[in-house]
Amino acid sequence: MKTLVVVGHPDVANSSTQGFFKHAAKEEPQVTWHVLRAPFDPLKEHQLLWEADRIVLEFPLYWYSVPAVMKDWIDQIFDEELLGESGQRLAGKEFGVVVTTGRALKEFAPGQSQGFTLAELLRPLQALANETKMTYLTPLTIGQFTRLGKKERLELAVSYRQYLTAEKPGHLATSVAWLVERLNKLAKEHEDQAPGYLGLVAVLLDNQEQLADLGVNLTLLGEDD
Amino acid sequence: MKTLVVVGHPDVANSSTQGFFKHAAKEEPQVTWHVLRAPFDPLKEHQLLWEADRIVLEFPLYWYSVPAVMKDWIDQIFDEELLGESGQRLAGKEFGVVVTTGRALKEFAPGQSQGFTLAELLRPLQALANETKMTYLTPLTIGQFTRLGKKERLELAVSYRQYLTAEKPGHLATSVAWLVERLNKLAKEHEDQAPGYLGLVAVLLDNQEQLADLGVNLTLLGEDD
Repeated sequence: MKTLVVVGHPDVANSSTQGFFKHAAKEEPQVTWHVLRAPFDPLKEHQLLWEADRIVLEFPLYWYSVPAVMKDWIDQIFDEELLGESGQRLAGKEFGVVVTTGRALKEFAPGQSQGFTLAELLRPLQALANETKMTYLTPLTIGQFTRLGKKERLELAVSYRQYLTAEKPGHLATSVAWLVERLNKLAKEHEDQAPGYLGLVAVLLDNQEQLADLGVNLTLLGEDD
Repeated sequence: MKTLVVVGHPDVANSSTQGFFKHAAKEEPQVTWHVLRAPFDPLKEHQLLWEADRIVLEFPLYWYSVPAVMKDWIDQIFDEELLGESGQRLAGKEFGVVVTTGRALKEFAPGQSQGFTLAELLRPLQALANETKMTYLTPLTIGQFTRLGKKERLELAVSYRQYLTAEKPGHLATSVAWLVERLNKLAKEHEDQAPGYLGLVAVLLDNQEQLADLGVNLTLLGEDD
């Protein structure tokens, strides 16, 4: 499966958040990390989108929607040439969203300071996916990245890599399957540590329902980065 | 009351819809019609926003949100300089949205082709109004402008002028008060037709609850344009 990450940020080079994601994405060979810079070459952009099985828009939330550079890209690139005469040329692909917010995630709720959920605020992207017959993935939402501690960042790196590459990201069974696959791979690559990795595999498979608490597995996996 | 209409459209000069709105807005002396063109002069933009009592964003819906030029303007102009250290410098102003769609309005609903209501799709602008402590006005939504007949266009011109200038636009009492004021003004300006205008005023005041059906009044008012 090929994943295209489309990054919309006015100053990616100086974004520690995007630097973190870029580093994590590098671990996944089937992922193309594509930073938007105007002017766009429609032919090249269309080719990237056609080749991807999963398209992920990644951006910081600016005034409750995508930054201008990403809206510019959407307005210019999502045309009849891209979608085909039938409008179905992207049909069947998966369409994901990785969004970071300066506010804490809990503020995005009725009765909280931001008043609306992120699911609601991202409706325009969901509607775009619907219109182009792509499957909308539950967005991966990250609040106040710079305040995350080391353990939280390692967990995020795993969640992010799963979001880009796992089947049905966000589902528990997906997380387990994805971790088991990666741990088995690590066991083969690092024979000296194989017993430890394979032990974790056994724990995972025995305790799928308690996965959320097994922060230690995520931490160990992250240390290989 | 001063109203600022901020028009975001990639090619305003060739838009018959925006030409129509511009013509209608000209009838209202307290309205400033401001077409966005990058690059923006932040000082000038801030001044326009500070001076307005009602700020109306007017645009065609592009991929379920504002066109890129308007997002660019929002991202660049809505900064700490505009909002002040307390973030309250626009507080108390009214914030409206005039949005045109290529699809029929009835398609914007769960179970219809567009899946979501325009109210939902416009949440990012509503959230911006909330965050800056402006009063969000019910958006004025126009579907498939080019298919509107003459009578519908005249009615729209009246609705639009009310949206820009009337207190509490969209409320029935507002429509009546606004029409009565305009008809009285016309009666003074055109003495020969005064009895007709004043007759309409009497009909309006006697039949407020049936205003929606009194298309003839709107049509007559429109003919003065």
